[in-house]
Amino acid sequence: MIDPRVASGLRDVPPSAMIPRERMLATFRKVFSSYGFMPIETPHIERMEVLTGKGAGSDEVLRQIFEVVNKGGDPGKLALRFDLTVPLARFVAKHVNEIGIPFKRYAIGSVFRGERPAKGRFREFTQCDFDTVGTESEVADAEIIQVIYDALASAGIRDFRIAINHRLVLNGLLETLGAEGQGASVLRVLDKLDKIGRDKVIVELTTSKMPEEGESPVSPILTVEQAKRLLDFVEAGRGPVEILDQIDAGIAANPQAAQGITKLRTIHQLLVAAGVPTEAIELNLGLARGLDYYTGVVFETTITGWEKFGSVSSGGRYDNLASLFTDRKLPGVGASIGLDRLMALMEEAGWLGGTSTTAPILVANFPGGDPAIAVALAARLRKTGVGAEVYPDPIQIGKQMGYGTTRGHKFAVIVGPDEVASRVFNLRDLTTRQEQKAVAWDALESTVQAALAGQASGS
Amino acid sequence: MIDPRVASGLRDVPPSAMIPRERMLATFRKVFSSYGFMPIETPHIERMEVLTGKGAGSDEVLRQIFEVVNKGGDPGKLALRFDLTVPLARFVAKHVNEIGIPFKRYAIGSVFRGERPAKGRFREFTQCDFDTVGTESEVADAEIIQVIYDALASAGIRDFRIAINHRLVLNGLLETLGAEGQGASVLRVLDKLDKIGRDKVIVELTTSKMPEEGESPVSPILTVEQAKRLLDFVEAGRGPVEILDQIDAGIAANPQAAQGITKLRTIHQLLVAAGVPTEAIELNLGLARGLDYYTGVVFETTITGWEKFGSVSSGGRYDNLASLFTDRKLPGVGASIGLDRLMALMEEAGWLGGTSTTAPILVANFPGGDPAIAVALAARLRKTGVGAEVYPDPIQIGKQMGYGTTRGHKFAVIVGPDEVASRVFNLRDLTTRQEQKAVAWDALESTVQAALAGQASGS
Repeated sequence: MIDPRVASGLRDVPPSAMIPRERMLATFRKVFSSYGFMPIETPHIERMEVLTGKGAGSDEVLRQIFEVVNKGGDPGKLALRFDLTVPLARFVAKHVNEIGIPFKRYAIGSVFRGERPAKGRFREFTQCDFDTVGTESEVADAEIIQVIYDALASAGIRDFRIAINHRLVLNGLLETLGAEGQGASVLRVLDKLDKIGRDKVIVELTTSKMPEEGESPVSPILTVEQAKRLLDFVEAGRGPVEILDQIDAGIAANPQAAQGITKLRTIHQLLVAAGVPTEAIELNLGLARGLDYYTGVVFETTITGWEKFGSVSSGGRYDNLASLFTDRKLPGVGASIGLDRLMALMEEAGWLGGTSTTAPILVANFPGGDPAIAVALAARLRKTGVGAEVYPDPIQIGKQMGYGTTRGHKFAVIVGPDEVASRVFNLRDLTTRQEQKAVAWDALESTVQAALAGQASGS
Repeated sequence: MIDPRVASGLRDVPPSAMIPRERMLATFRKVFSSYGFMPIETPHIERMEVLTGKGAGSDEVLRQIFEVVNKGGDPGKLALRFDLTVPLARFVAKHVNEIGIPFKRYAIGSVFRGERPAKGRFREFTQCDFDTVGTESEVADAEIIQVIYDALASAGIRDFRIAINHRLVLNGLLETLGAEGQGASVLRVLDKLDKIGRDKVIVELTTSKMPEEGESPVSPILTVEQAKRLLDFVEAGRGPVEILDQIDAGIAANPQAAQGITKLRTIHQLLVAAGVPTEAIELNLGLARGLDYYTGVVFETTITGWEKFGSVSSGGRYDNLASLFTDRKLPGVGASIGLDRLMALMEEAGWLGGTSTTAPILVANFPGGDPAIAVALAARLRKTGVGAEVYPDPIQIGKQMGYGTTRGHKFAVIVGPDEVASRVFNLRDLTTRQEQKAVAWDALESTVQAALAGQASGS
């Protein structure tokens, strides 16, 4: 016997988790489509140099690549994609002349990272990406944020907040502090603010690190004065759009910061015009998010009360999507929804409901009866849009009802030999166990629909 | 620069192909669900021994496995799945106690085979599988065939035929001919009947093969008399259910054949009860289909006039799904729809339509106008269920209209500075270029919906 376990860090998704997952994906596809984002699909397998950029990439993600051993057909190395952004860049570089710009695409698919397995962290997970490529417009920036709002609200999530910042504001801030060369280091520390608090951030920014053996000494990133001004700015820079009016005049006068502030105002106005509730949007002038990659607006999304799950959707604007693959400069903006994290959160919050069947009606297969009648009645229900499952074997009715109760069917249609003679059926409510008896076959569709409507309205 | 090509044998799916593909998958999910099939998802990566069965498997497919190089986390070898059936077997063996039987699942996903790349044949392709596990009932057999019918008909395919046979009929036939030991060889040749014709099949069945050097001589598979009786049976055994009445009495009296014939009759009756048109079903008593695997009913589906594409959906009944992973005997029946083959056929047949946008309305971004108005109008349209895309940049209106025409938007909403003053818009039909002028903003939703309805009805 072979052990039927999955490989470490991977998992099966059973029906009870897949049913709400499919519902959520259907919602996302509908929302993305309603804005004109178009689906594309790229292979799970890419050429290694596409993913690693000829060795240019050297970060955590690249070390986690799963190599695929290629049997004939392609001379080079292959690997599984670790995100949907690199495949988008390759796709756009390859197809830009056919598809034209602006190009709005969404993609939903598995990505693979050989991370150390841990609770809630898997080596294969699903990303839902949407990007607008080929424009520098704030209309596109605002729209991506609007789509995040619309997708989560349409999925039934009520209370969440999208934090927004603009990279130019951060650049201007660092320039004003005289620390423009320290950007990456400053922001890496700043990203910890929510976790470790103001005082520890100041210590980290202003303390020289003891060098490891063989390394040269590392001087402090900022002076204490610089660090305090930074923290003052960042801490005041969190809240509704009005905080932009209160920015320190010295910083607001910096040309980069001023441009960033203007762009944030424009994006905010467009979100208001689009009907996105202002309480769902929060400025956070300390938000950095993957500094190396983004060059414009950045954003991340947390569910109120469930901040410990981190961001469920984040993204931002980039200057040049596909510079590894084409000379053509392709600016754009995009976001990704982390489906697995979102589903895990909703499950823990109890927001998923208990649906574990896809068809609300179970048609019993009566012992000694004619299964063709059950099959015919079920076919009639499906024609009216009501899902109906026929129990395959004519076992004891009690066992069939037990199956329906366990699976989560709402009602059972039962036709025994007596009912065949007079062309009637019984309809059993699998929750209350109450039964409507001797309903005429002709009244099947109307009776079942009324019963489902009644149960849904709680009567 | 890195060449943005995909690896050999793989491909990108652009929006023009993805939009009908997503529509087809949504149809399939709806049909599967309406019968109570529940979605599951298993990882793309499995442990090698799960896929190869500890070396038990040695056929073509196993040689085509893509190995995945595992970086920590799991001690054993890993590989990409080559179908969805082995993962189903593993899933059921692992989870049968939680999920219970009968277990009806569907799964849609990529599978990987390192085949030599060829036109229309890819190393990653999509399967849509549905199976009922844990029952021997013909109700389940007929239902799988009914689902094939329903899925294809719901996807808009009008004329297709599902060929059906039962493995017991073939067993009985071979037994009657005194050739039960030759089953595999006979059926391998018989599978070529449509391609090479009766005479060549008889030659292949009755000629001794010249041995290769070092091999022992191979005697003929059948005598000429056996071969002729076989071909007579198979050629007469093709058509509507009535052919079962005309089966050679000697063969029909064989206990295995008799049982198979009874089961075929039952399945046919259930299909009629379910409302499947009889012309969509054809008996084909020579149909073998993957003989090693199936043990009961088998079927395959061809689109009338497009038989050269081969079967677009096939499957059958198996005795024991998960014998590699569990002692528990799990009989079942299932089928797979080959999405890529079906889409390729529909594209070649011109059945896909030319949709290349997901939103029918383009809202122009007027040069010198206020994009917030465009954003607000688009948001209103989406609230009524009408997809609307805002052009991101305020470029020349003519260029924006060109974009809409190319993408396939049906109408454009245009609000210039003059229109803002009187709160009106113009609605341009992007096909006819006719324009409704000065429509009040208040009438946006009703005007757009009437225009879309008018265009759809061809007025």
